[in-house]
Amino acid sequence: MPEDVNMTRKEAGKRLTARSTAILLLDVITDFEFEDGDKLLRNSLPMARKLSRLKARAKKSGIPVIYVNDNFGKWQEDFKTMSDHFMRAEAKGRQIVTLLQPEADDYYVLKPHRSAFYSTTLELLLRDLKTKTLIVTGVTTDICVLFTANDAYMRGFDLVVPSDCVAAVEPNHKRQAIEFIKRVLKADTVPSDKITFARR
Amino acid sequence: MPEDVNMTRKEAGKRLTARSTAILLLDVITDFEFEDGDKLLRNSLPMARKLSRLKARAKKSGIPVIYVNDNFGKWQEDFKTMSDHFMRAEAKGRQIVTLLQPEADDYYVLKPHRSAFYSTTLELLLRDLKTKTLIVTGVTTDICVLFTANDAYMRGFDLVVPSDCVAAVEPNHKRQAIEFIKRVLKADTVPSDKITFARR
Amino acid sequence: MPEDVNMTRKEAGKRLTARSTAILLLDVITDFEFEDGDKLLRNSLPMARKLSRLKARAKKSGIPVIYVNDNFGKWQEDFKTMSDHFMRAEAKGRQIVTLLQPEADDYYVLKPHRSAFYSTTLELLLRDLKTKTLIVTGVTTDICVLFTANDAYMRGFDLVVPSDCVAAVEPNHKRQAIEFIKRVLKADTVPSDKITFARR
Amino acid sequence: MPEDVNMTRKEAGKRLTARSTAILLLDVITDFEFEDGDKLLRNSLPMARKLSRLKARAKKSGIPVIYVNDNFGKWQEDFKTMSDHFMRAEAKGRQIVTLLQPEADDYYVLKPHRSAFYSTTLELLLRDLKTKTLIVTGVTTDICVLFTANDAYMRGFDLVVPSDCVAAVEPNHKRQAIEFIKRVLKADTVPSDKITFARR
Repeated sequence: MPEDVNMTRKEAGKRLTARSTAILLLDVITDFEFEDGDKLLRNSLPMARKLSRLKARAKKSGIPVIYVNDNFGKWQEDFKTMSDHFMRAEAKGRQIVTLLQPEADDYYVLKPHRSAFYSTTLELLLRDLKTKTLIVTGVTTDICVLFTANDAYMRGFDLVVPSDCVAAVEPNHKRQAIEFIKRVLKADTVPSDKITFARR
Repeated sequence: MPEDVNMTRKEAGKRLTARSTAILLLDVITDFEFEDGDKLLRNSLPMARKLSRLKARAKKSGIPVIYVNDNFGKWQEDFKTMSDHFMRAEAKGRQIVTLLQPEADDYYVLKPHRSAFYSTTLELLLRDLKTKTLIVTGVTTDICVLFTANDAYMRGFDLVVPSDCVAAVEPNHKRQAIEFIKRVLKADTVPSDKITFARR
Repeated sequence: MPEDVNMTRKEAGKRLTARSTAILLLDVITDFEFEDGDKLLRNSLPMARKLSRLKARAKKSGIPVIYVNDNFGKWQEDFKTMSDHFMRAEAKGRQIVTLLQPEADDYYVLKPHRSAFYSTTLELLLRDLKTKTLIVTGVTTDICVLFTANDAYMRGFDLVVPSDCVAAVEPNHKRQAIEFIKRVLKADTVPSDKITFARR
Repeated sequence: MPEDVNMTRKEAGKRLTARSTAILLLDVITDFEFEDGDKLLRNSLPMARKLSRLKARAKKSGIPVIYVNDNFGKWQEDFKTMSDHFMRAEAKGRQIVTLLQPEADDYYVLKPHRSAFYSTTLELLLRDLKTKTLIVTGVTTDICVLFTANDAYMRGFDLVVPSDCVAAVEPNHKRQAIEFIKRVLKADTVPSDKITFARR
């Protein structure tokens, strides 16, 4: 079914209530050892710097940080083992993994497919946390971010997808995905430094 | 995660095994009484003519036909009551509903949201039918068709989205959605008259 | 994991808030044409009389009534068609179906398996209705009622399973299921005439 | 709906095809620090000895071993960290955790509630492993084992619940649960030493 398309509201800034917000980091813990990995790595580095700052500010406001990561078909591995592995000196994504290193009080969910909601416990975790607004970040904008945002939208979450905290292989695919996320999912795609958190 | 993008295979024709194929008709039973409804109606009429022929050919080959329709928040209504309602003389979508009228041996699933898989029994029905290839048709290309195709892809179905059997409000949104469906979901988007069904 | 077992609270009566309660009728629309059908039919008739009164009182208080029924592998049939079918003069369950006849403003959900939650839209419907307390009734106590109550419990609903509004083939199986439902699911199993509805 | 009840087949032994079998160990990695924990611990020790042998034989035949464990509301903790924690000298379940210690090639799934299938990735993992027969073991027979077996049954798995590889707080609750699992879920409840694995 079609829906209203206009997004005339000026994105001057986005003030979120800390208590009901959570932030997802999608697939940032990786070795970029896949097709177009180098290209994505290049586009992801500036993203990771921005996201690292957004994560720090979110944590200071008490917002839960949830890593959701492909399990790469490795159903047997823990997430912590995985992230240590990706910080070895010779690992390609080392710089990014280091910037976005999971901390002891962060949550993590392994996902078997593209959407962070498909065949995972994420929905229940978010309900447990009383999340209403979901900040979706990470890679890639036109695949896992998009699939996850779609599923979040259907489950009734308000969405914020800060345009500088997502990355894709092709700038054009990122641009189209962002437009879709704005138009169809009514997400706010304001840059991360325009987001503020109200403790309430 | 990024995936390979090229679709070099020439779409010269698509031969599907009838026994493992099913066809979905999304949101075609409607009164078009919503924003941009007239525009979508105009774009849907040629689509409905093509789809009507594809459906007839599919049924002749013994392929299950599954209507999946928004319940419009009317959890209490049967699908047959709904479709009768939409064929009244004064109903806007009358022509389309008449072309695509559900038959006694067609299946139907009411969906509460955009994806035909979300909070419905569709996945179990398809497993019961031993479906491997899913033809996704209907409206609109960039919303319910896209959400449904995404979910079908994650569930491992091979996808065919015949480009002349889907419609959208804006031609540009349709074009982008079709490109996405081809590139990211590896769907075949061949026009419906290139699809043939092998009985085997 | 084990849980506390004692149910010392005297079941003197149960007052439910109408606004957050819903009532499920499981598999009451049937022809009893299955093994042990005659035995179940005999046990179900007194149950149906009690349930019919409970349903009437619930509706008067504005409580949503939801029929959840096996689809008997008939994915193509509407629930209304099905219930008309089961009221024909020669249908075995005629008396029960007549007592518990679905009305126009009742909800219905077809379930492909035992639990009313498995591969159905029920959970989303209940969230839409803002249901917190679920009255589970119907047949059979030790199978579909039990499976449904289990799933409702995991989803956080408070449960009432009025002991005179459920039936089973074997009295002993009913008794054990009721005990389980009390002990493990913390359900109230008070007889239906002890239940009152507060409009608030 | 009622189902046939008789289980006349003599449980003389159960030969399972290794390639399509998986074994679940439910909630065996725990500190037994809950109500009735001591009682359950006592009943679990002989179970753990049997299960340890069954697990060893299963692994030798190439059968995947899957630990499914409550996350105790600790969404942030890895399973390996958790199991190390439960083997400390002063931990109550030390003996059992030591007998059933997860190995590097075992799978593990954290479950937020009673059923191993509810809001977890288990179903997808089992499909990935091409599992058809599921051996369900662990604690407690009348709660997590029962809920998990119910859900496995609805998803079409053949069930084996070896009666000496499950434990409960109360012998009577175990007995009733085993009877239910046999009668309603058609499970084989043969003792573990009667189970043999055929390599294909």
